[in-house]
Amino acid sequence: MTDSKRTRSGPGDKRHRLTVSARELLHRQGAAATTLAQVAEAAQVPPGNVYYYFKTKDDLVRAAIESWAGELRTGIESCAAQPDPPARLKALMGLWVDQRDLVARFGCPVGSLCSELDKRDDALVDDAGRLLRVVMDWAEEQFRELGRPDARECASILFGGVQGAALIANTLRDPEVMTAHVRHLEAWIDSMAQPSREGSAVR
Amino acid sequence: MTDSKRTRSGPGDKRHRLTVSARELLHRQGAAATTLAQVAEAAQVPPGNVYYYFKTKDDLVRAAIESWAGELRTGIESCAAQPDPPARLKALMGLWVDQRDLVARFGCPVGSLCSELDKRDDALVDDAGRLLRVVMDWAEEQFRELGRPDARECASILFGGVQGAALIANTLRDPEVMTAHVRHLEAWIDSMAQPSREGSAVR
Repeated sequence: MTDSKRTRSGPGDKRHRLTVSARELLHRQGAAATTLAQVAEAAQVPPGNVYYYFKTKDDLVRAAIESWAGELRTGIESCAAQPDPPARLKALMGLWVDQRDLVARFGCPVGSLCSELDKRDDALVDDAGRLLRVVMDWAEEQFRELGRPDARECASILFGGVQGAALIANTLRDPEVMTAHVRHLEAWIDSMAQPSREGSAVR
Repeated sequence: MTDSKRTRSGPGDKRHRLTVSARELLHRQGAAATTLAQVAEAAQVPPGNVYYYFKTKDDLVRAAIESWAGELRTGIESCAAQPDPPARLKALMGLWVDQRDLVARFGCPVGSLCSELDKRDDALVDDAGRLLRVVMDWAEEQFRELGRPDARECASILFGGVQGAALIANTLRDPEVMTAHVRHLEAWIDSMAQPSREGSAVR
């Protein structure tokens, strides 16, 4: 955040700053450990003002989810510029590989937030599910364009692979776990683009 | 827990009950949301007694990790009875598929605990890493026996796939995500046992 931005402190700007700070803190320390006071401090918003924008921590978590959904859509748009489905799917996975050092330290921001919210039994789980679907729906379209009748399953295998690699990279603090797993998934995608090979077909 | 067991309340028995209750509560609601008082109540141990066995919640989390490691070793022993590496690796994944309904509701107990502890920067992350390695070391041996020079990578891809599938199954509350992903990994293992096929080779 630059100083010039900090002086523009209209209501929308403060809300945005709180959301960005919440996103960052949720990623680094998880939702349970994050307080509204910490978010206010990181966003340089007076603690008493937070309640004007977010009544509860759950409201802030929802805003962070919505913000991640926006990030994912932006990332997907950049991948959609690739010429064909295999290149698009590889570009999608590249978004995670490019962030592998951060993933190895704090996990995938999306996946680790989902994992934490999954323990709950309220509407935030549905919000987390919608976040995953932003990626999976688009990946499914790519697999369908590749002629896969099991496009939904393929999307789940692809994104599950990325998420599982992120978890292991994070726990072992080893970014290269991401690289190796994505290389494997790339080879799987390549094998689909050559229909004569059957070895890696999803039965 | 049967009544006859509950009357045997030697120190070892209480410690065991606290550990089992902690494991269960950590799985269902995560470490942050779990209190020593809840664990004491679930274990039917007077709250004041807990401190005799576990000074802090972290001590209890460590005991739960050790207990999960024991469970994983027992599971692995049952898989080791299979005649060859592909059958053993499939039996390993079967341990998760068999629990898919529970996984879809509360996540993989091991993976979701790792994901939560990964945010920290203390010794518990190493404990979580050792837990993953119980599975990955054994899977690596199987891939080595299959003649894979990249056995470690294969183990990581296999267990990452299982963990990612567990996360997506949990977020979407859909146990069949596990089944489909494991079917895919089984096909990958089968393709290794037939070295003439190259489609799914890890480059």
